Amino acid sequence: MRVEPYQGRLAKCSALMKGEGIDVLLLTKPANMFYLTGDGRLCAYALITQDGQVALGVPSTDVEDVSGLAHFDRITGFEDEVGMIHAIAHDFEHFGIATGKAGLEYSFLTQAMLGMVTHPHAKPQDVVPVDGTAILSELRMVKEPQEIERIRAAAHVADAGMKAAMEAVDEGATEVQVAAAAELAMREHGAEGFWRTYVASGPRTNIAHGLPTRRRVMRHDLVMVDLHPIVDGYSADICRTCVAGEPTDAQRTAYELFLQAQQATIARLRAGVTMQELEETLHGNLKAAGHGGHLFGPPIHGLGIEFEEAPLPAGHAFFHGEKAPLTANVVLAVGNCRLYTGPWGVRVEDTVVVTREGHETLTGYPRSLQVRGWMHR
Amino acid sequence: MRVEPYQGRLAKCSALMKGEGIDVLLLTKPANMFYLTGDGRLCAYALITQDGQVALGVPSTDVEDVSGLAHFDRITGFEDEVGMIHAIAHDFEHFGIATGKAGLEYSFLTQAMLGMVTHPHAKPQDVVPVDGTAILSELRMVKEPQEIERIRAAAHVADAGMKAAMEAVDEGATEVQVAAAAELAMREHGAEGFWRTYVASGPRTNIAHGLPTRRRVMRHDLVMVDLHPIVDGYSADICRTCVAGEPTDAQRTAYELFLQAQQATIARLRAGVTMQELEETLHGNLKAAGHGGHLFGPPIHGLGIEFEEAPLPAGHAFFHGEKAPLTANVVLAVGNCRLYTGPWGVRVEDTVVVTREGHETLTGYPRSLQVRGWMHR
Repeated sequence: MRVEPYQGRLAKCSALMKGEGIDVLLLTKPANMFYLTGDGRLCAYALITQDGQVALGVPSTDVEDVSGLAHFDRITGFEDEVGMIHAIAHDFEHFGIATGKAGLEYSFLTQAMLGMVTHPHAKPQDVVPVDGTAILSELRMVKEPQEIERIRAAAHVADAGMKAAMEAVDEGATEVQVAAAAELAMREHGAEGFWRTYVASGPRTNIAHGLPTRRRVMRHDLVMVDLHPIVDGYSADICRTCVAGEPTDAQRTAYELFLQAQQATIARLRAGVTMQELEETLHGNLKAAGHGGHLFGPPIHGLGIEFEEAPLPAGHAFFHGEKAPLTANVVLAVGNCRLYTGPWGVRVEDTVVVTREGHETLTGYPRSLQVRGWMHR
Repeated sequence: MRVEPYQGRLAKCSALMKGEGIDVLLLTKPANMFYLTGDGRLCAYALITQDGQVALGVPSTDVEDVSGLAHFDRITGFEDEVGMIHAIAHDFEHFGIATGKAGLEYSFLTQAMLGMVTHPHAKPQDVVPVDGTAILSELRMVKEPQEIERIRAAAHVADAGMKAAMEAVDEGATEVQVAAAAELAMREHGAEGFWRTYVASGPRTNIAHGLPTRRRVMRHDLVMVDLHPIVDGYSADICRTCVAGEPTDAQRTAYELFLQAQQATIARLRAGVTMQELEETLHGNLKAAGHGGHLFGPPIHGLGIEFEEAPLPAGHAFFHGEKAPLTANVVLAVGNCRLYTGPWGVRVEDTVVVTREGHETLTGYPRSLQVRGWMHR
C-alpha cells in the first residue's frame, strides 16, 4: 500500500474541504476514489474526513484485492446493499461525525444511489448532503508529473490505435470493423481498456456521438475515428478524419479549415490563457469562414483519469463558464467539437499539456486528410 | 420510420401510465428511448404523453439520423443544454401539459441531469416529478418474439466470443489479451459493440467486477470470462471459468458444485416460478455444500436491451423483492453470482428464455471446466 501520492492529494483535498466548509466526502465515483486512494471500482465507496482519513467500503469478495492496491485507514467488506448502508453508518460513527456537511457527487449519483448513501440507516440525521463535485474537479485538474507520464503513454497507444483504424478503412469495411481494429491495436500496445470508441462514416459523421454501426464505408465517405485508450488508469483522446477515395473540394476545404482552427487554438495554449479565449479562437476561425451554424459540442475539455473531465465535464458543459486562467500541467483535448455541414462532418482532436511557456502535444498521428481505400486500387 | 412495434409498445405504456396516474414520461436513458421509439442515444430526450404521442429532442446534428431510425410525432434539434431545456418546455406546451405527474428515470438520472430536465425553464411549475422507472422495467421485462430472436443472435455471438477467449488463455497471455480476443471475435461475428467485458484470473476471480488488467495468467490459475455482446441493440450474457493447467481437487470440486447448482436452477425455470424460488435453488445448493459464506451478488437477473435489466436491476438488486411469478418470454441470465473461496472463485452463467412449459437456453458454449494452456505443452 503506497502512501504517496495519496497523502499529498489528501492534504490538498483537506484544504479544499475546509475552504468549502465540507466536513466529509462520501464518494462512489471510481475515478474520484482512484485519484484519492489508488483504487476505484464499482459497488464501493470512500468516506474521506476533513483531516484526510480514508474509510473504504467494498464488496466482501474484494477486500483483499483492494487492500493490495489502495491507501486507506479503514476498510469494510459488505455482502449487499444493506451491508453497505450499515458500513457507511459505522464509518460515520468511527470518525465521530454526527453533524456537518457531507460532499456527495451530484454529477455522478443517480437518484436511486443518492437514496442509498443518504438512507437514514447510513447517514447521520444531522449530516447535510451538499454537492462536492467542484472539490474533486479542482483537485484533479492540474496533473502531477507522474500523471502526465501516464497520459503520454496513453497518447502513444492512441496513436497506434489510430494507425490501425486508418489502415482498416478499406473497401467493404464496416464501422464496427474499423473500431475492432483500433481496439485490438490499443490493447496490443498496452491499453488495459478504453472509453467509448467512436467510428462514424458518411452522413453519420454529422452526429454528436458516432458509436460504430455495421454500416459499410462507401466511396467518398468521410470516416471519423475518436479513440480513448486507458493506460495505468489514465486516458488520452485523439480524433482523426479520413476519406474513402478522393475527397470532394468541399470536403477538403472544410477539413483544412477545421485543422487550421484547431492548430491555431493549440498555438495559443500556455499558462494564463482562459478556456473562453481558446473556444473563441477555435469557433472564431470557423465562424469567420461562414460555418457559425455548423458547430456542435464544447470544442475543448480536460482529460486524465476520465476521457472528459475538468476543465468542463462533470455535469453539463455549457453551464460552467470556466473563467479562471489555465495553469501549467492542465491536460486538454483540443478539437472536441465537430464542423458539420449536413451531408458530412469533419474533426481533428489532440491531447495537449499546458506548460508555463506554451504547450506540448502528446498525440502525434499525422493530421493531414488521409485518402484511404479505393484510391489505392 | 417504422410504426410497429412502437405503436403497440406505446399503447401498453399508456395503459401502465394510466394505472400509475402518470401523465407524461420524460426519458433520457438510451435503452428506454430505444425500446419505445427505435432510437436511443446520449444527449437526447423523449417526452411520451399518456395517449402515446412522442416528442424527441436530439442534438441539431442528429435530427436527420434520428428521423431515419425512430418513431415519433415531433422532433426538435438543439445546440446545447440551454436549447435542450427550452425544447422540453416547448414540448410540454405543444401537448398542453401544465399540471400532473411526470415520470422520470430515478435509477438513471444523476442529480445534475435531474436539475436540468426539471429546470424551471424546462418543466412547467405544476408538473410534479415522480419515479417512472417501474413502468419502463415492466414494459421491457416480457420480450416480443422479435426481441428474443435478437437476443438469440447475440447469444451466438457470445458463444463465438467465449470460444476465442478460451483459446486465448495460454502461457504468457494477460487478462487484457484474453478480453481483446473475445471482443474481436464478437465483432467479427456481428456484434456492433458490447457491455463490459470481464476477464479475471487467479485471486482476481474472487472480486465482484473483474475488469481485465495486464496481469499474466499463471499455472493453476482459474480464469473467469464474462461477455455481453450487443447485436441489433440486444445483449446476451455468458460466463465461463477455465483453468490454466491441471486444476486442484478443490478447484474442480467447487466448479462442479457451482455448475450443478446453476443447472438445477435452470431446470426449475418455467412460467409461474418466482425469482425468489430460483435464487433459493441456486443459493441452497451452494449452502448445502458449506459455501453459504462464499456467495456474492444476485444469482439471476433479466437481460435484453441492457445486459442487466428487469427482473432486478434498475436501482439496487437487493431492495426489490421480486415477488411476482415469472411469465413466458422473460429472458434471464442464470449464474450471475460467484462462488468465491478466498484464493479464487468460480462461475458459470447462461442466457435462458422462460417458456410456458419450461425454458430454452440460448448460450451454448460447453460448460465443463476447460483445461487450457500449460497442460497442452
